[in-house]
Parts: sequence; C-alpha cells; structure tokens
Amino acid sequence: MKNFHFYSPTYFVFGKGKESETGSMVSRFNGTRVLLHYGTGSVVKSGLLDRVKASLSKQGIYFTELGGAVPNPRSGLVYDGIALCRKEKIDFIVAVGGGSAIDSAKAIAMGVPYEGDFWDFYSGKAICKKAVPVATILTIAAAGSEGSSSSVITHEEGNFKRGCTSEHIRPVFSILNPELTMSLPNYQTACGAVDMMAHVMERYFTNTQEVEITDRLCEGILLTVIKETPRALADAGDYASRANIMWAGMVAHNDVCGVGRDQDWSTHGLEHELSALYDVAHGAGLAVMFPAWMKYVMHHDVMRFAQFAVRVWGCEMNFQHPELTAEEGILRYENFLRSIGMPVRFSEIGAREEDIPLLVKQTGIGSGTMGSFVKLNAQDIEKIYRLAL
Amino acid sequence: MKNFHFYSPTYFVFGKGKESETGSMVSRFNGTRVLLHYGTGSVVKSGLLDRVKASLSKQGIYFTELGGAVPNPRSGLVYDGIALCRKEKIDFIVAVGGGSAIDSAKAIAMGVPYEGDFWDFYSGKAICKKAVPVATILTIAAAGSEGSSSSVITHEEGNFKRGCTSEHIRPVFSILNPELTMSLPNYQTACGAVDMMAHVMERYFTNTQEVEITDRLCEGILLTVIKETPRALADAGDYASRANIMWAGMVAHNDVCGVGRDQDWSTHGLEHELSALYDVAHGAGLAVMFPAWMKYVMHHDVMRFAQFAVRVWGCEMNFQHPELTAEEGILRYENFLRSIGMPVRFSEIGAREEDIPLLVKQTGIGSGTMGSFVKLNAQDIEKIYRLAL
Repeated sequence: MKNFHFYSPTYFVFGKGKESETGSMVSRFNGTRVLLHYGTGSVVKSGLLDRVKASLSKQGIYFTELGGAVPNPRSGLVYDGIALCRKEKIDFIVAVGGGSAIDSAKAIAMGVPYEGDFWDFYSGKAICKKAVPVATILTIAAAGSEGSSSSVITHEEGNFKRGCTSEHIRPVFSILNPELTMSLPNYQTACGAVDMMAHVMERYFTNTQEVEITDRLCEGILLTVIKETPRALADAGDYASRANIMWAGMVAHNDVCGVGRDQDWSTHGLEHELSALYDVAHGAGLAVMFPAWMKYVMHHDVMRFAQFAVRVWGCEMNFQHPELTAEEGILRYENFLRSIGMPVRFSEIGAREEDIPLLVKQTGIGSGTMGSFVKLNAQDIEKIYRLAL
Repeated sequence: MKNFHFYSPTYFVFGKGKESETGSMVSRFNGTRVLLHYGTGSVVKSGLLDRVKASLSKQGIYFTELGGAVPNPRSGLVYDGIALCRKEKIDFIVAVGGGSAIDSAKAIAMGVPYEGDFWDFYSGKAICKKAVPVATILTIAAAGSEGSSSSVITHEEGNFKRGCTSEHIRPVFSILNPELTMSLPNYQTACGAVDMMAHVMERYFTNTQEVEITDRLCEGILLTVIKETPRALADAGDYASRANIMWAGMVAHNDVCGVGRDQDWSTHGLEHELSALYDVAHGAGLAVMFPAWMKYVMHHDVMRFAQFAVRVWGCEMNFQHPELTAEEGILRYENFLRSIGMPVRFSEIGAREEDIPLLVKQTGIGSGTMGSFVKLNAQDIEKIYRLAL
C-alpha cells in the first residue's frame, strides 16, 4: 500500500426533506452572503429552489442567484458567476443540482479570489490557494462532486474539457435527499450509475499490489450499484434503491475507496473529448469508452480482471484459462450497460469514425502518455477509440 | 435507509515514517502547547516517543507528558491528566498508542474545560459542549478510536466501564504508520482484528432493511480482516497485511459502514463488564461474547445471518434450510477466532459461571433493555453469558 493522506471533511446531511436544513447549515459554516447556483428548469419547476430560498430566508441569510449551468458545464457561465460574486460580495456558494451545477460552482469559487483567469486552474498553469466555501444540494446521483475535491469544466473556445483538483473546493456540506432523484428520466439515472461505477473502476484497475481493503470497498460499491440501478429504473419512486445509489455515488468518489494505490483515470480523459465534441452525457460516453479501454488493457493484468469478473460479476473462475474469466467479466459489464439502456458503441451516441484523429488530438496527448495502469500513447488511444466503433 | 448525518473530518496521514509529520500537523491545526499522552513501556522503548518529541521540537511546539494509560483505561489517570492540562495551559492533546491511550486522551480533553466531574459524560449526566482538540499517533490497529467520536473508560470505584460519544472528541488528525504495529505480540494483533470485526458486526446486524451500500462496505471490511490477519500473524513484518488491517480498523469505526441504519452495540455492552471484572483484553472478551450473542439472536432474522454466512464466510446457501446456513456462518466465525488464537469460552479468559449474576448486575440493565437488533432484558443477558460458558 502506498503512503497517502485522506481528508474528507464534508458534512453530509442525508435523507428525506433535508433541503430544509440549508439555512442552518450555511450558518453553521459561517456563510452570510450566498450565491445560489443551479442549472435549468427542473430545480425551479419542482419547487426545490423555493424551499432552499425559504430555508435561507428563515435564517436571515442574504442570497442572490445564478441559473443556467448545463451538462458539461461551460466556462462562459463561470466568468459570469465570478463577476456576480465579486459585485455582490458573496462569501458562500450553494450549488443546487447535479455534477454540472456543482462543478460550475467550484470553478466560480476558485475564480473569485484569484486575480488571473480561472481557467489557469484547469489548464495546469496555476494551483488554487483559496476559494469561496462551496456547499451542495444534490439532485442527481452520479458525479460524486458533492464529496470530492474535483471539478470538470468545458472551455467554449475549442471545446476543451479539463479537470481540476483542489482541497479548497471540497464541499463544506452536502445535502443528499434521495427523493429529489425520483423525477429523473431513466436515461439520466442510468448515466449516473455508469459514472459512479467508472469512478470506482478508475481506482480499481491499478498496478499497486495488495490493497485488499480498497479493493473490497470498490467491489462493494459496484455490487450495490449493479443491484440497485435496475430497481430504480423499474420503479422511479423506490426510495431504498434511490438512497443506496445516492450514497454509493458519494462513497465512489470521496476517495475512501481509492487511497493507497495508483489510480488510472485515462478512460475519463478519453470520454471528456467525446462529450465535449458531441455534447453527449458523461455517463453515456463512459459506457462507450470503458469496455473498449478494458478490452485493450486486459492482458496487462489478467488476474486483476479475473478478480473483477469473479467478485463483481459473479463469474465462475476458470483456473486453467483465467483470461476467459477476465473476458467474461468485461462482457457481463457491457451487457449490464445495455440492460440499463446505455449506449456501448460510437454509433449509438452519434460519434463518427472519421472524428477519431480529432478526438485523439483534442486529448492534448501529443507525444506523451495518459493513464497509469497502462500508460497509453496516442497510438494506443486511437486503437481504444476504434474498439468502441 | 434512515436519515443520517455523516461527518468524519479527521485528517489521516498514512504510511511509513509518518510520525515525523506530528509537529507540522499540530501546527496546521493551531496547537501550541501539547500534552503527549501515552501508555507504558513500548512507546518509549521503541524510540517512537523520541521521534514524536523531535518532530514537535522542530516546529518549536511546547509539550509536556503523561504516560501510564493502561488497557481498559482508568478514571484515575484521567483526573491526573485534566489537572496537568489546566496547570500547563495545554491547548492540544496528542495520544500516542492504541485505543487505551486515545480514549484516555479523549476523556482528558473533555474534562479540561468542564467544571464538573468528567465522569458525567460517561454516566450520561452531562453532554460535552467543548473539548481540547485531540490528535492520535496510532500503534495498535483495533479500537478505531483514531477516527471515531467515542471513548470508553473504566471507573475505578466499582469497575464500571462506560462509553461516551461526542463530535468534540473526534481526532482532528491521526497518523497511521503500519510499521508501528509490527512489534505487537500476536495475541494483541489478533485481539485488534476481533475488535474491528466487532465494530462492523455491531452495525451489520440491524433491523433496518435494504441498506445494501453499508451492508457491502461492512462485508468488504470483514473479508479484508479475515484474509489479512492470518498473514500478519504468520509474518509480523509483512507490511501489506499490516497496512490493510490498520486502515480497515479505521473504516470499521468512523461510521462510513454504519450510516443509515439502527446499530446494535449490545455485545460491546456485555463485553465491557467482562473486561472490567477480569481485566481481560477487550478483543478477547468480544471473541467470547460475540458468537454467544449470535447464537442467541440468530432466529430473529435468519436471512440476515444467512447473508453473513454466504457473503462473509463463503458458505453455500442452503435454500431449503437457511437456518443451517446461518448456523454454519456462526460456526465458521468461531473457528476463525480459534484459528487466530482467540478464546471463545468463559473458561479460556478466567471468567467464572458463578460471576454471571454480578456481570448482569454490572451492566446496569435493571428492568430495562440493551441492543436494538433484539432488545435484550436481564434474563436474555444472563442466557447469553451462559452460552459463552
């Protein structure tokens, strides 16, 4: 096991109706002037935003609003948010929504006290030294951004999608009410499941040996999502499955299942260019790319893929031919993705073979590599995109 | 799933040699005058205490010392510690040791700013409102106190052992170096494994239905401890198994595997009287009491015990007679305990049948009940003690 630091100080408030505690939680963490940042219609139409505002008003907390965060959140809105926060002397940001609103809020939070362009944090030009505190009220179980120190933003000039990690943007509190996820279309619920599974698998496929505790935690989260997602899709109002999925999404990404090991994250890199170019949902892009990545790298560590197949997918171990077990695990994963209505090939998301050279270029890989389980160069990446055709 | 709050803000520093970061971590959390609290010889003899002192001195941090914490830590030393902290104007306590030193430090931390008797927090007479910040340098993987909000102290007048829970005593940071556990006698390593498994099982056996995510996390921790403990016992210097066990002990008790469900904790209650009366190691007492408790309550929810047997102990499900699977799981657990050198009967720890009425009385149960999976009254408790004969 590698040395590590683990610090996950987010205060989680989980359960039915918990958005009514927004005001008291903001007060607890010393917020006085709040930016409410959210996406488009549903947060408003459902009445959630009104309930959050009422909770803030009850505590006498000043707030202003910025809606308009979209899936694959854009840099333009971040600049607007930074300007608004400065003008309004905002000292606390509450994101209401899914990963998009939260990641956008995190970008704004870093940008407010920073003299340069916030994009510096995403392009790797600067490291965040401080940020306005961020909290979240989660409406989509997927990204894990409610408990993570990361954010992903798409720059509108050139459709670059880039991530940034900083302890300063880990939410100080997050309110998770599973009921809020019941109104999601099945497609979005399924995309969320794919995303949280991907967060686990980016950590699971590692060259660090003998980290049994995090292996087991990873497998436990995957088994939960595999069991609960079909139930949520069959009955959108099933609280138990919604609650299990929602907490799984957090545990999948606050890094408790990833410490002590190298992590890979190349599939996220490959997917970011897909969703930036075609504006496809992140989860759908991952459903296309993850099986392709697995097929390409499987032979690097057949026994790890066999473990994945046996422990997560219930395959029988083939002791004479472990590679057949490994392949069966990948197949079952792909079949599961299909069964929950996810695309698994380029054609199903409108992606085109002729764009592959552009996709490879957009990753910015040049003559470098990405990933750690297998270090992928530009040729590898092209082959993986082709495996997804 | 039940509504819950989850807040685990401890900063964990994990890995080889990490005790050298004590000084910088104390500074990070604004400590200036430190009490170093520890147990008996080994922390001193191993040179660990000197390394910690050097790290504090390097940062220019003042410190004073109080050794002498013993297994099943005693109230007498807590009173000494409170007086010392007040005299020395201590603003930060670093516990160096296992659960005993840590729990003793937590009691001191609560007692310092409190005008009454610190025991009020353990007897239920008062609720802690503030405490001196506590940090830990862990030398025994067992109690999970390095990441938990709880503390257990034995009152010397009458040998009462009582627990207390407060967010104010959750460590602000904890340093976990698996190498420090390599010098433990096998008996203590095994006791630690039993203790962390018990922390998981107190959460696992619940009447709250369909909390799959925490079920799976619980099972993952148990599977890890079951796999890694025999390796650590066979080769005390095996870093991988030590590291897995050490982190498992934390995850077993910071409540990430227990949220959203009723928890039981009656077996800990039963054990506390055993170890208070006979001064047996807590883990050894749990090894005696947990199988007895299981045998007594199994029929309350046979399917839960069957799940435990299948998922944790690899039993084949008997679909016609699930109770046989449930029984087999308990048997395999008991066999595992024996295989790692643990006692599983009264006679093996010097406990006596004729003391059972006294043990029952000492729990303070009177005409009340304890536990939540099955609410046990005095008669039930007596029967469970007898099942351990």
